[in-house]
Amino acid sequence: MPGVGAKSAERFAFHMLNWPPERLRAFADVVKGVPDLLFHCDNCGCLTDIETQPCRWCDPKSRDSRVMAVIATPKDAFALEETASYRGHYHVLGGTLSPIDGRGPEALRLEPLKARLEALQTEELIIALDSTIEGDATSLYLKQVLAAPGRRLSRLAFGIPMGSALDYVDGGTLARALSGRNVL
Amino acid sequence: MPGVGAKSAERFAFHMLNWPPERLRAFADVVKGVPDLLFHCDNCGCLTDIETQPCRWCDPKSRDSRVMAVIATPKDAFALEETASYRGHYHVLGGTLSPIDGRGPEALRLEPLKARLEALQTEELIIALDSTIEGDATSLYLKQVLAAPGRRLSRLAFGIPMGSALDYVDGGTLARALSGRNVL
Repeated sequence: MPGVGAKSAERFAFHMLNWPPERLRAFADVVKGVPDLLFHCDNCGCLTDIETQPCRWCDPKSRDSRVMAVIATPKDAFALEETASYRGHYHVLGGTLSPIDGRGPEALRLEPLKARLEALQTEELIIALDSTIEGDATSLYLKQVLAAPGRRLSRLAFGIPMGSALDYVDGGTLARALSGRNVL
Repeated sequence: MPGVGAKSAERFAFHMLNWPPERLRAFADVVKGVPDLLFHCDNCGCLTDIETQPCRWCDPKSRDSRVMAVIATPKDAFALEETASYRGHYHVLGGTLSPIDGRGPEALRLEPLKARLEALQTEELIIALDSTIEGDATSLYLKQVLAAPGRRLSRLAFGIPMGSALDYVDGGTLARALSGRNVL
């Protein structure tokens, strides 16, 4: 598990030894049931609890079809939903480009993305990837292969995080905040 | 001292007891000499080591007179210099608006700022304040009192810090990164 070392794992295991048998059985049933309860939508790649299409993330009735956000993992959709300021579609890439780990464009869900952009006639594609080297490389690649007339490509802004003092911001972030400054 | 509690202060004091007398005297001389070695420039408000005007921060020969950055404290100038992507002038406000602490516009160095903007015919004023409530309030106020034809007011970008994953970014920052997204 992420962030759990050997010591914590041992603590978890010994803690579970104190659970009554019915609680252990209930927990095991939930874990066992995951593959029957949660699916990756074939279309957008997000996590969904129904097997039917469209899933709640790509239902054109509830979502704005003019915008699509490219995300690396299904988890990122939840982060963007929590902002309550995005109502467009999502497309899970399934990762980012990383030549060092041998992950090239063939590892990404690019063909379904192209097909969806065509089918939905998306006006704006928001690249919502990490501000890491892999995220930068993938953004650059997406810009090259997905640019098309009548389609705007944008990327999440980089800069000073909310509530932060200039004092605590690293030089790279400050340089990006300076170059990306907004006219008031 | 910032970030130094009673325990650490005690440790410092006992550590200094082990210093040889000449080192203690040298240290005391440096501390005593600060008012004669460092000045706040009357013009920009930045720290300078010469008493003459213009100081190195507002020397028109070495700085770009078309741009001025409004900063809260002299320390912020060093942070912006470190990015190596800013060569304009600075103006130290001497703080931010904070009604809760009784700090109103009269506590800020506003009149000298207005005079300098006029004298230098500044084309762009970059508001480089923290992304806190005080920073936001001060930006809004500055926009109201300093807007003028032919003068652009801008503010440092807010968004995802460099090298950060979407996962670790709070909802407010993500919402600002989304609304401030850049067209590629």
